[in-house]
Amino acid sequence: MTSHTPTICVINPNTSTAMSEGIATSARRVARGEILIHTSRHGPASLEGHFDEAMAVPGLLERMIETERGDTRVDGYLIACFGDPGLAAAREVASVPVMGVAEAGMQMAAMVARRFSVVTTLARTLPIAERLLHEYGKREQCAGLHACELPVAAFESDDDSVYDTLLTACREALEADDSDAILLGCAGMSELAERLGDTLGVPVIDGVTAGVALLGAASATGYPVSKRGDRAAPLAKPLYGAFEHLSRSLS
Amino acid sequence: MTSHTPTICVINPNTSTAMSEGIATSARRVARGEILIHTSRHGPASLEGHFDEAMAVPGLLERMIETERGDTRVDGYLIACFGDPGLAAAREVASVPVMGVAEAGMQMAAMVARRFSVVTTLARTLPIAERLLHEYGKREQCAGLHACELPVAAFESDDDSVYDTLLTACREALEADDSDAILLGCAGMSELAERLGDTLGVPVIDGVTAGVALLGAASATGYPVSKRGDRAAPLAKPLYGAFEHLSRSLS
Amino acid sequence: MTSHTPTICVINPNTSTAMSEGIATSARRVARGEILIHTSRHGPASLEGHFDEAMAVPGLLERMIETERGDTRVDGYLIACFGDPGLAAAREVASVPVMGVAEAGMQMAAMVARRFSVVTTLARTLPIAERLLHEYGKREQCAGLHACELPVAAFESDDDSVYDTLLTACREALEADDSDAILLGCAGMSELAERLGDTLGVPVIDGVTAGVALLGAASATGYPVSKRGDRAAPLAKPLYGAFEHLSRSLS
Amino acid sequence: MTSHTPTICVINPNTSTAMSEGIATSARRVARGEILIHTSRHGPASLEGHFDEAMAVPGLLERMIETERGDTRVDGYLIACFGDPGLAAAREVASVPVMGVAEAGMQMAAMVARRFSVVTTLARTLPIAERLLHEYGKREQCAGLHACELPVAAFESDDDSVYDTLLTACREALEADDSDAILLGCAGMSELAERLGDTLGVPVIDGVTAGVALLGAASATGYPVSKRGDRAAPLAKPLYGAFEHLSRSLS
Amino acid sequence: MTSHTPTICVINPNTSTAMSEGIATSARRVARGEILIHTSRHGPASLEGHFDEAMAVPGLLERMIETERGDTRVDGYLIACFGDPGLAAAREVASVPVMGVAEAGMQMAAMVARRFSVVTTLARTLPIAERLLHEYGKREQCAGLHACELPVAAFESDDDSVYDTLLTACREALEADDSDAILLGCAGMSELAERLGDTLGVPVIDGVTAGVALLGAASATGYPVSKRGDRAAPLAKPLYGAFEHLSRSLS
Amino acid sequence: MTSHTPTICVINPNTSTAMSEGIATSARRVARGEILIHTSRHGPASLEGHFDEAMAVPGLLERMIETERGDTRVDGYLIACFGDPGLAAAREVASVPVMGVAEAGMQMAAMVARRFSVVTTLARTLPIAERLLHEYGKREQCAGLHACELPVAAFESDDDSVYDTLLTACREALEADDSDAILLGCAGMSELAERLGDTLGVPVIDGVTAGVALLGAASATGYPVSKRGDRAAPLAKPLYGAFEHLSRSLS
Repeated sequence: MTSHTPTICVINPNTSTAMSEGIATSARRVARGEILIHTSRHGPASLEGHFDEAMAVPGLLERMIETERGDTRVDGYLIACFGDPGLAAAREVASVPVMGVAEAGMQMAAMVARRFSVVTTLARTLPIAERLLHEYGKREQCAGLHACELPVAAFESDDDSVYDTLLTACREALEADDSDAILLGCAGMSELAERLGDTLGVPVIDGVTAGVALLGAASATGYPVSKRGDRAAPLAKPLYGAFEHLSRSLS
Repeated sequence: MTSHTPTICVINPNTSTAMSEGIATSARRVARGEILIHTSRHGPASLEGHFDEAMAVPGLLERMIETERGDTRVDGYLIACFGDPGLAAAREVASVPVMGVAEAGMQMAAMVARRFSVVTTLARTLPIAERLLHEYGKREQCAGLHACELPVAAFESDDDSVYDTLLTACREALEADDSDAILLGCAGMSELAERLGDTLGVPVIDGVTAGVALLGAASATGYPVSKRGDRAAPLAKPLYGAFEHLSRSLS
Repeated sequence: MTSHTPTICVINPNTSTAMSEGIATSARRVARGEILIHTSRHGPASLEGHFDEAMAVPGLLERMIETERGDTRVDGYLIACFGDPGLAAAREVASVPVMGVAEAGMQMAAMVARRFSVVTTLARTLPIAERLLHEYGKREQCAGLHACELPVAAFESDDDSVYDTLLTACREALEADDSDAILLGCAGMSELAERLGDTLGVPVIDGVTAGVALLGAASATGYPVSKRGDRAAPLAKPLYGAFEHLSRSLS
Repeated sequence: MTSHTPTICVINPNTSTAMSEGIATSARRVARGEILIHTSRHGPASLEGHFDEAMAVPGLLERMIETERGDTRVDGYLIACFGDPGLAAAREVASVPVMGVAEAGMQMAAMVARRFSVVTTLARTLPIAERLLHEYGKREQCAGLHACELPVAAFESDDDSVYDTLLTACREALEADDSDAILLGCAGMSELAERLGDTLGVPVIDGVTAGVALLGAASATGYPVSKRGDRAAPLAKPLYGAFEHLSRSLS
Repeated sequence: MTSHTPTICVINPNTSTAMSEGIATSARRVARGEILIHTSRHGPASLEGHFDEAMAVPGLLERMIETERGDTRVDGYLIACFGDPGLAAAREVASVPVMGVAEAGMQMAAMVARRFSVVTTLARTLPIAERLLHEYGKREQCAGLHACELPVAAFESDDDSVYDTLLTACREALEADDSDAILLGCAGMSELAERLGDTLGVPVIDGVTAGVALLGAASATGYPVSKRGDRAAPLAKPLYGAFEHLSRSLS
Repeated sequence: MTSHTPTICVINPNTSTAMSEGIATSARRVARGEILIHTSRHGPASLEGHFDEAMAVPGLLERMIETERGDTRVDGYLIACFGDPGLAAAREVASVPVMGVAEAGMQMAAMVARRFSVVTTLARTLPIAERLLHEYGKREQCAGLHACELPVAAFESDDDSVYDTLLTACREALEADDSDAILLGCAGMSELAERLGDTLGVPVIDGVTAGVALLGAASATGYPVSKRGDRAAPLAKPLYGAFEHLSRSLS
């Protein structure tokens, strides 16, 4: 049996430390080793659309580059936003496996169920989830995409009405789709997954726990990550303007 | 951190105990908990085509049903043949996650590389691998399918010429496909993966280690498996003829 | 004009001789030549899921191998279960064309209508039908998949309520899908097809008659079947356990 | 057993009666009943592109409408040009099944082989064949598309060099594609299919014989054709200009 | 800035000059240069199915060949029927870009909205629209296909009830599909687009204006059209029967 | 005829003003109205991978927001980098049509040719182009993707060896793919397109000119852009860190 316990670095690409704490709690529940949690210092406090994601990515990459340049060995990175912002760029930067919580959740859903329903925050983010389903080869296994129409920030609260609204949306999704499982479409919903699963009697999957577990699995096998093609390190060149300090002599 | 260490039951659907031993060695290299290894008592000693797989599936299911009926708690099952024979039937039978080594290997390959080449035994099995790529949503990520034209049984030997033939096939696949990783298309190749990877300098993925690690990840999350739709337990009814003892009052 | 009349061997992969009789009656209605009907001696009396199918396949292949080894020249084989169990394995074994009733029914439906609805027995078998639609390139032409929720065994009875339940399901499918034809999703429904068609005024297609007719067409052309790639005869090797007598010196 | 022998009406959409004769010879070789052969009176003597096909379709429909208005009962129509020109329009006009030789050949190829190569006349017609493969759900089963670069008219001659050129193209296609069968991409090649098959040792499929056999199969089942949706009869309305005599009070 | 203003030749493939006038009015509203409008002299006065389209294509090509043979330089052709009849043949004939109004409308819809609903005349034409969506790679962006069940001829009238019926169908489509825009599925609806858009508050796209604008864009770039493969000029050969005067010494 | 001439705002998302000048020259060659050219102030001087694109997007959006907040009316935006970075985010921000040069080039290529080859800079960017082909529904029309292995910066020079290298790559692509046209995969290649086309005798398409022309077409029709779903304006919320000044009270 392998003895090394993996250190997984979870990066919250929004700037909400409250949300980071919730994510860390979930992550630690399933981790075999240590969880590092980083919060971005740039961009919005919640990601609810393409613009929000675009503005968050440099801050996410900044935290990852700091980690790569630092002294702590990390065995995998998890991007803790369901749109998996910056995933391809992060795979250029990192020397170890990187996953997004959407990718991880979709993969875990496919392991424990045949057809799952996605339940996310605002409807305007559904096209993002749908594109990822296609990209990860999971569109056929998704029975439907649904929004509970609560903003991301609502999930920083412990208010029962938040839980109730999400529960209702999950119930409606299961019935409308005749599906076998729920995939939660926001890292901020992570702490509610277990309670929802107990109530609904079907697997309720959260990408944070799925991602930490899957990255642990990748680490256990000992396979290196490919650094060829579009996963090769970024070319060395100066950056101008706001993120000059990330200029790549690093690569 | 989770303290329960998962017990993974690996079932070799062919009747070769020599191959089972090799598979067990690989499995144990990455397992966090115990590995149970079962060998089928029915069918051919190697699976190299649709007929071979079809004749092997009842023996595979027999071993799984024995395990389900037994006293040892199991946290996941791995079907140790690259065609993933009987996977859908096994998911009806089992109460915990089931994976095939093709499914697991393809998923792991997608985590550590963008485009992988499959290198398997005989060319006549390539259509089986190709169908699975479609089924698991990974056809786009497979850069090519190749056969080394050694039979499965060859991989029970330690003969260097076997390793050399496989190495050559992997090299040719990487060059022909301009791919980023190799996925080995036979559980019997498992013990050669690490050496191949060291030599080739790219990830060489083996479904046995991938499957044990991924089932461990599924177990770590604590998600139940769905038992709805076509994953519900088989209907209770008598079986006639050779496998009467598997008649389902069990379900 | 061709004078040879083809002999079609229909194999019922479940063990119900009552169902075999009904199937034979339908088959003979459209056959130009002789119909041989064989019933499996192993597995369940009805196939309603992946496990049932998996346990039925060796018995199906046993009957086919007996026929291949026998003295009666056969011009085509039809697998009389809508899941087309064992079709790929059967194509390795047989020296003449093999079809499944799902494949035949879907093909015939595409000849007489643009969009058809599938109406089958239990909902748990719908994923099997859906996979076959993809495999045979007919997913686009299927307007919807429906279950009447009667078990296969119900269709061994002449009870009018069985007919009525199926009729209602067909009516609902036509309306829900706005489709042009019905494809019956169980070989056991074969004898009801004509009456349903007369009542509904749309083509109601049954895979048994479709299959017998299409295999007759293949025979009429005189084309050999390909025995290359994954349709080559199984490799010669011993089988252990329950089906040792099918060990392949045959190939 | 059914006693009615079907009458199949084969329509050659080009104006070459020499080609019609060859087609009729092939058709009669496999027909169980009578073959009617009609030749278009409008358009080019050979169809080698979109323009040729477009100009040929009204003449094809004219012959079909004449037949529908006539006294001879017909059990099916076959459009004897590999581009299947006018197929959808013909299905509006006809009260019985209609097939094109491309559709029929692709379907027959899928019955006797896993992967086939198409070998046609001029390369400029390959996009037409490729579109039909997609439309009929057979793209995955086509291993490659090839042109022998002889014009359609060449196949009206008995010249051995024509046979030799086609044979060479078939051999090259089988090798380049590693395929299991050949599908001939021109109705004019029909009479050469048997000799090519004997020489090459793989199924060499011709859409004319395939179509006659498949339409016979459709007739044997007794299923009506759907006349709903886009297969309903054309709306009654006047036609102006060249084809005024086809104005539809008929429908 | 470019100074040449493009001349676009719009061909109405039905024989209704009333409809041609409406189309010309729309076309001129967006054109930077001159609009030539031609009406076919053969076939039906409205195209509502495959037969209608097939009978209209030779007349359409006749007008195009006359134009190609004439003295007026044309910078692009637009086929003004939503089924894009004869588009591939027209691209063989023409020396400049050719578009159909369905193609143009779908492309413009993709520029101004993410998901559009198609609203057309009679339901029997919906399969034609659906095939074009696939062919042009826009199926994913179409949220639904709907018919207002008014015949094409209705749109030659200024009757308010025609507008009202179409408006209602558009409203229902937007609601049923939760879509972002309407694409009108008939060239005859062109003059109503602007009023519908003002009322509905979403983009209401008409293929005539879209096509004139896009052909103007193609002309502005100065790119030649490819005349290779299936866009090469038709082979020179005689035509027999009704369209003998189009025999191709032209090519 | 329409009299308003559209103002198109072209944004170069890299920081190279030299490249912006070349792009502006091309854009003005086909524009009917005014061209505004903006250069990003943040990120790398050339975009050659996911990281480069990710770091460039905020600077691109900054320029667009400045323009939206400014006094100059703009009729369309063109993102002048072949990866179309930030396109979805830009469509949230903008009130008029937005295109990327890859999207525009692929669309224009489909108008003037059946199958095109993409020729881009470094091979590491090919996966980006391939993803866009899928996203825009143009994968089937792309015959192949090729790299000339010159960096983006090389195209700022007038050196003949740069032209020669690109010409050779285009020639090889046409031959390898048997394609009908070339699509240049970098905005920096724009000024070379015309010369390449003259030399090669096939359409050589550049996304800058294509995009300016297509945005002009969209403007000519007068259709508004949809601001629903994932094209709605970003939610109003503060941005932290580097781009705080883009905080959205704007929306």
